[in-house]
Amino acid sequence: MTELTSRPTDLTGLEHLRAIADGTLEAPPIARLMGFDLVEVEEGRALFAATPTEAHYNPIGSVHGGFAATLLDSAMGCAVQTTLPAGVGYTTLEISANLVRGITAATGRVLCEGRTLHVGRRAATAEARLTQASTGKLLAHGTTTCLVTELAG
Amino acid sequence: MTELTSRPTDLTGLEHLRAIADGTLEAPPIARLMGFDLVEVEEGRALFAATPTEAHYNPIGSVHGGFAATLLDSAMGCAVQTTLPAGVGYTTLEISANLVRGITAATGRVLCEGRTLHVGRRAATAEARLTQASTGKLLAHGTTTCLVTELAG
Amino acid sequence: MTELTSRPTDLTGLEHLRAIADGTLEAPPIARLMGFDLVEVEEGRALFAATPTEAHYNPIGSVHGGFAATLLDSAMGCAVQTTLPAGVGYTTLEISANLVRGITAATGRVLCEGRTLHVGRRAATAEARLTQASTGKLLAHGTTTCLVTELAG
Amino acid sequence: MTELTSRPTDLTGLEHLRAIADGTLEAPPIARLMGFDLVEVEEGRALFAATPTEAHYNPIGSVHGGFAATLLDSAMGCAVQTTLPAGVGYTTLEISANLVRGITAATGRVLCEGRTLHVGRRAATAEARLTQASTGKLLAHGTTTCLVTELAG
Repeated sequence: MTELTSRPTDLTGLEHLRAIADGTLEAPPIARLMGFDLVEVEEGRALFAATPTEAHYNPIGSVHGGFAATLLDSAMGCAVQTTLPAGVGYTTLEISANLVRGITAATGRVLCEGRTLHVGRRAATAEARLTQASTGKLLAHGTTTCLVTELAG
Repeated sequence: MTELTSRPTDLTGLEHLRAIADGTLEAPPIARLMGFDLVEVEEGRALFAATPTEAHYNPIGSVHGGFAATLLDSAMGCAVQTTLPAGVGYTTLEISANLVRGITAATGRVLCEGRTLHVGRRAATAEARLTQASTGKLLAHGTTTCLVTELAG
Repeated sequence: MTELTSRPTDLTGLEHLRAIADGTLEAPPIARLMGFDLVEVEEGRALFAATPTEAHYNPIGSVHGGFAATLLDSAMGCAVQTTLPAGVGYTTLEISANLVRGITAATGRVLCEGRTLHVGRRAATAEARLTQASTGKLLAHGTTTCLVTELAG
Repeated sequence: MTELTSRPTDLTGLEHLRAIADGTLEAPPIARLMGFDLVEVEEGRALFAATPTEAHYNPIGSVHGGFAATLLDSAMGCAVQTTLPAGVGYTTLEISANLVRGITAATGRVLCEGRTLHVGRRAATAEARLTQASTGKLLAHGTTTCLVTELAG
């Protein structure tokens, strides 16, 4: 695990994500690969933006469900991370995603907002909504369960 | 929707996927983006292979949950597609993914096998398991619900 | 299927549920078995109340997860039903439930509010939150995917 | 929490469930309420049987989804419990259930088999299948995520 990608253990979860959102820290590789931007982050909430293209297409001519699942997972995981003190991390145990409208390159920019629902000592849950930026139409929604863990020194 | 990516309506679901697996049809864009290969396909079953790299990393130094979710979704959706006659398509309504072991670049090649559980006239379900190729260890598993639909002419 | 329990095809989904909430129609058997009350219903929303007792206990000394899952499913399914015109029904395809706090007989009265997230021509999704009535604390939350169907005459 | 229902801390999870299956310990209240029987239990596997009746009906004239969800949850939770040593318990974090065929009183006896998929130090997952006993037809399937915990004294 390289210094580039591992979370600095002296930052809170929110400080770490703020440093990514404001460009102080580099965006993680998956965000660059998929074209995701972390645009807003505050305690219990994270907002991503992305623009689906034909590079995200499945064999049946629309954006692959994994695009929405990955965005939802990012927004939900980051929402959980915003609540964690320095030295405490998390692992995603489970993601559930509902895809309610098809997404194509014509959809344009999308927004994905994650919010925590419950943060306990050992587990946390969050939800997210993925919407079309131009209309606010709901495209997908999801929930997650995370395990809250001590970070290795 | 381009001819490149839309499903040919004169092929069965299985014929379409076989043409991708044997290289007659080009792999879909998402597979090239994420580095997935459809390696085996038969009625009710689809097997993908991939090798996670640091390009799939999240901000906390391991492979993003979206990598597993996208592979599981691919294997499950394709398993459903193998059961559909020409002129019948599907839409993924919902994906549920459990991530049971962390994945890093050190994990090496992974295999993801999807199998249908129920294929009805209007809806179908499938499950998938993601394993480390070298050890067979379970990394993630999932289920999906798909809507079975007529393809537009 | 008896007249008692099958949905009258000349009522809208909302009219049918209002008749249960106000006592004009008898509560369904499962509600009586589990001790659930439909207390409020409006377009896109249904609110249930219940009081868990030791009759709902699992072998490990707390209320069984099925109590929360059944309440969440009731609230989400009824929320979907409120949006359906006469002659249109629904089938639950999938339920996902997160149990975030343990429930015991000491929890007292609980409320479960379901709300639709997306209602399409062929499929609908909804979410629900289960809370402790006395404190508003979140106990469980869930989502569902339903198939929208024509009712048999 | 009464002695009747709390898990004896000097038994392994499997010993505790075997005592219920063979009638040495009383079935838990939820099983009596819903009419479930634990019929077989071994390491990593639990099998329940039940016979749905009109007492399990929802307002739309079929067995409520909560019946299947509760059975699936029972079988999956007990499958996890069979793997736990004395002094270690579990909490269900999340249940996902797919309902693939409608259930009515005419369905007759059903079987629900749960199997563990992954048992780790802090979390475990399991899956279950609900089938019609007379035909073996799949009625529902599910997965769960459990937190593995130390039992209080």
